[in-house]
Amino acid sequence: MTFEKYDFGVVGAGGAGLAGAMYGARLGLKTVIFGASNANELPIGGLITTAHAVRNYPGILSASGLGIAKKIEEHARDYDLVTIKQEKVLKIEKKKDCFEIKTTKGNYKISAVLLATGRRIRKLDVPGSMKLEGRGVSYCALCDAPLYKDKVVAVVGGSDSAAIESLVLSEYAKKVYIIYRGKAITPEEIHLKEIKMNKKIEIITNTNVVEIKGKDYVESIILDKEYNGKKELKLDGIYAAIGNIPISELAKELGVKLNKNQEIVLDHATSGTSVAGVFAAGDVTNKSFKQLIIGVAEACTAAHSAFEYVSEMKMKQCEK
Amino acid sequence: MTFEKYDFGVVGAGGAGLAGAMYGARLGLKTVIFGASNANELPIGGLITTAHAVRNYPGILSASGLGIAKKIEEHARDYDLVTIKQEKVLKIEKKKDCFEIKTTKGNYKISAVLLATGRRIRKLDVPGSMKLEGRGVSYCALCDAPLYKDKVVAVVGGSDSAAIESLVLSEYAKKVYIIYRGKAITPEEIHLKEIKMNKKIEIITNTNVVEIKGKDYVESIILDKEYNGKKELKLDGIYAAIGNIPISELAKELGVKLNKNQEIVLDHATSGTSVAGVFAAGDVTNKSFKQLIIGVAEACTAAHSAFEYVSEMKMKQCEK
Repeated sequence: MTFEKYDFGVVGAGGAGLAGAMYGARLGLKTVIFGASNANELPIGGLITTAHAVRNYPGILSASGLGIAKKIEEHARDYDLVTIKQEKVLKIEKKKDCFEIKTTKGNYKISAVLLATGRRIRKLDVPGSMKLEGRGVSYCALCDAPLYKDKVVAVVGGSDSAAIESLVLSEYAKKVYIIYRGKAITPEEIHLKEIKMNKKIEIITNTNVVEIKGKDYVESIILDKEYNGKKELKLDGIYAAIGNIPISELAKELGVKLNKNQEIVLDHATSGTSVAGVFAAGDVTNKSFKQLIIGVAEACTAAHSAFEYVSEMKMKQCEK
Repeated sequence: MTFEKYDFGVVGAGGAGLAGAMYGARLGLKTVIFGASNANELPIGGLITTAHAVRNYPGILSASGLGIAKKIEEHARDYDLVTIKQEKVLKIEKKKDCFEIKTTKGNYKISAVLLATGRRIRKLDVPGSMKLEGRGVSYCALCDAPLYKDKVVAVVGGSDSAAIESLVLSEYAKKVYIIYRGKAITPEEIHLKEIKMNKKIEIITNTNVVEIKGKDYVESIILDKEYNGKKELKLDGIYAAIGNIPISELAKELGVKLNKNQEIVLDHATSGTSVAGVFAAGDVTNKSFKQLIIGVAEACTAAHSAFEYVSEMKMKQCEK
């Protein structure tokens, strides 16, 4: 078997992975990024590419999620030491002081690994949700909000993401319900204000969606309690923003310590994990405040720690 | 005594402080930043403003230090909840669940504090250095490298900063010595390569500068060992890049735990310190890898933690 050899292997080509690769290259590490590793078949750039507008990345006043991902990608590609591979990582094994990575297209020997695999979107699990996915059931308002011009839609969830989805949808739809199981939605203050001022948006709390009905397309949803005297709510589309799940299967197989939410337990000072030579960054970690800027910085710290690790291991690493 | 009241008080208007304020405002905190707090009389933006070029802030391919600071400042000023005060903080006291801050111009009551005070440049401590400061002895190549067109200069130090200073100077000077007490300089790989290829730059290791001579301007320096047969080196300018010192006096007075280097000991997961309600970020902390992107992200984490702290304390905080 032949192996391509790199000093630093980054699994995941979201904002964190791309930034970590750039820093690795600055530190002289021959670096490979594996994109589309395990994720939602997103383009290079990861989940942030589904964001309508990013206004909280310090130094960039406003950009689309895709736009900001492109800037970070361009930054990584600016270094000759960085190679981006659109390959899915199937397995990572630690062999002595070297990691062997098998992808859909090849085999690699890597001295230090950065897991920046991010998170995948959590899907609605009620009758009708699978059948009607792409036919009124959606997970990305940004992707298809314009389809709902002058129609009625619902967003399921109470997080900041749910709030943003509802605001995006309100630019097209004539009515947007936010349906949340808890007693009050919890978006960022700035979004809460916008929602309160937006006459198209109506919030239904303490309520769950139990079924989605429709022949070819979504026609209505069934709630677990009455709203305005009825359990059935007629609408044309339903967006779920009910969270996302860390993509940590490869980490688990490698023996990296995870918390109960299956997030990688990070040494926040060094971006190290419980396995020597394995670093992590971004939304797959247990950092409680998940933001692009924070994942990016974690990855830069990881690159520096990987550089120190590789320097120390120089005598005994992968035969080269 | 009258007090202005804020939820979130940021001490230091460098990249970290400005980014933290922006995030605080996004989270609905009424935020004040005190610039020029304790620092080197730098403009808003802090030490990064002295950087020739910043190419390692992910998403911004290349900008001057001043340019990137301006972008982050503009981002902070975009929020009505942010007030920037060009006042020096003289004292911070914790009174029950409220901090009282006294500045050169006023008095403030603050619910949560972010210390983003950064670092000050370490000065050369040899005979002649004080007398000739600004007359050939300098701490900022970017500021006055053009003055040394076709002249001979030296940079003291072996760090990445020293390397960058020497590269900047080589664009003007005809000869640049790097004088370092250690056995090999330790810049980033990318800068080391540039130095090796640069014929104007000559490295003198295992050597200290012990005196700077000159009547009105620098004329020569004295080394502690011979170089090319002489201890005296004729030159026109000497730049010191011998490190910098955390500005942590206010933190110390507040009872915040420092390490032996006088850096604030940070809880890297939350950006908290040993004192409840006091958060820290940027170059004043004990994070080993000091980079703009990392300080900025620490400050964003701090703003989020301050938001949670203020929410929890709402019942008992400063009478409002």
